[in-house]
Amino acid sequence: MKLLQERIQKDGVVKAGNILKVDSFLNHQMDIALYQEIGREFYKLFKDCGVTKILTIEASGIGIACVTAQFFAVPAIFAKKSKTKNIDGEIFTSTVESYTHGTSYEIMVSKKFLTPEDTVLIIDDFLAKGNALLGLIDVVNQAGARLAGCGIVIEKGFQEGGKMLREQGIRVESLAIVDEMSETKGIRFREP
Amino acid sequence: MKLLQERIQKDGVVKAGNILKVDSFLNHQMDIALYQEIGREFYKLFKDCGVTKILTIEASGIGIACVTAQFFAVPAIFAKKSKTKNIDGEIFTSTVESYTHGTSYEIMVSKKFLTPEDTVLIIDDFLAKGNALLGLIDVVNQAGARLAGCGIVIEKGFQEGGKMLREQGIRVESLAIVDEMSETKGIRFREP
Repeated sequence: MKLLQERIQKDGVVKAGNILKVDSFLNHQMDIALYQEIGREFYKLFKDCGVTKILTIEASGIGIACVTAQFFAVPAIFAKKSKTKNIDGEIFTSTVESYTHGTSYEIMVSKKFLTPEDTVLIIDDFLAKGNALLGLIDVVNQAGARLAGCGIVIEKGFQEGGKMLREQGIRVESLAIVDEMSETKGIRFREP
Repeated sequence: MKLLQERIQKDGVVKAGNILKVDSFLNHQMDIALYQEIGREFYKLFKDCGVTKILTIEASGIGIACVTAQFFAVPAIFAKKSKTKNIDGEIFTSTVESYTHGTSYEIMVSKKFLTPEDTVLIIDDFLAKGNALLGLIDVVNQAGARLAGCGIVIEKGFQEGGKMLREQGIRVESLAIVDEMSETKGIRFREP
């Protein structure tokens, strides 16, 4: 998505430790006009998949999921994060390893909101190692729902998450794939 | 807002401990068509205030803030929560007491995104004791920005937050004010 790549080039900041800061438009301050273009693009990609629910994870996926859900005219759901194992039988849970923090956390979705009749589009802002997505996919599978695929705003193509998921046969559509980035040489995107 | 009150009556569940569960449409699964009506209503109320930024707090305020921001055609910002005191000079922080959990946490907003030129509309899903809003208002004041007011989806009118803020001269617009609720007698809204 050209508009997004241009914005990342213009306002993204590469920091040590493979960090790409996009907090001025994507995950702290949120450029809603850009969000609308992102939502429109996800709709273009997945509009024929019979999507009935959009699923994301708190916190920075929520805004993108909501704006995207408008195009599909379906509800959005955000998985909640918790550091404590919740054993309430009425929720789907999955454990997500966080490499950034060297810890793991539980994600939770109420069983009321995902059923075998659902076709789910997972939306998130970033894809790196893919652990958060694996947790969300696990929840979709536990519900017996169909997975339409994953719509990602920025994929770090130099980390293994996207490859790992696609090798499992999961459809992953990333609007920008960063193949290389450095503080000195800037950002190089994968060609479509 | 009649549509919202009807939805709360239909799908809201009152639980012990003054809990109103609205997770089927507001803060876990999110009814985006309802969100759009909520955003439209906030726009009607605050459209003449010169709003330049929408400010909310993670997690459940984010979706409402984003959908609302579309009507104002301004960026939305979400304050991040952190349990550790962050002393980075480039962020505004404020401490929020959480009565629910008997703890306190820090909220953080990057200084880049709020300036004295801004007029801020604060958006949140719930208002009870008002502590989260006090933290957000503190951040707006630290930035030297102007506060247009607070747009709240559901105010618990039997708790003191709304009264306390209005007595400070802050404009608080709640789309539904619950004056009484109980597991047996249901929900009674304040008349407009």
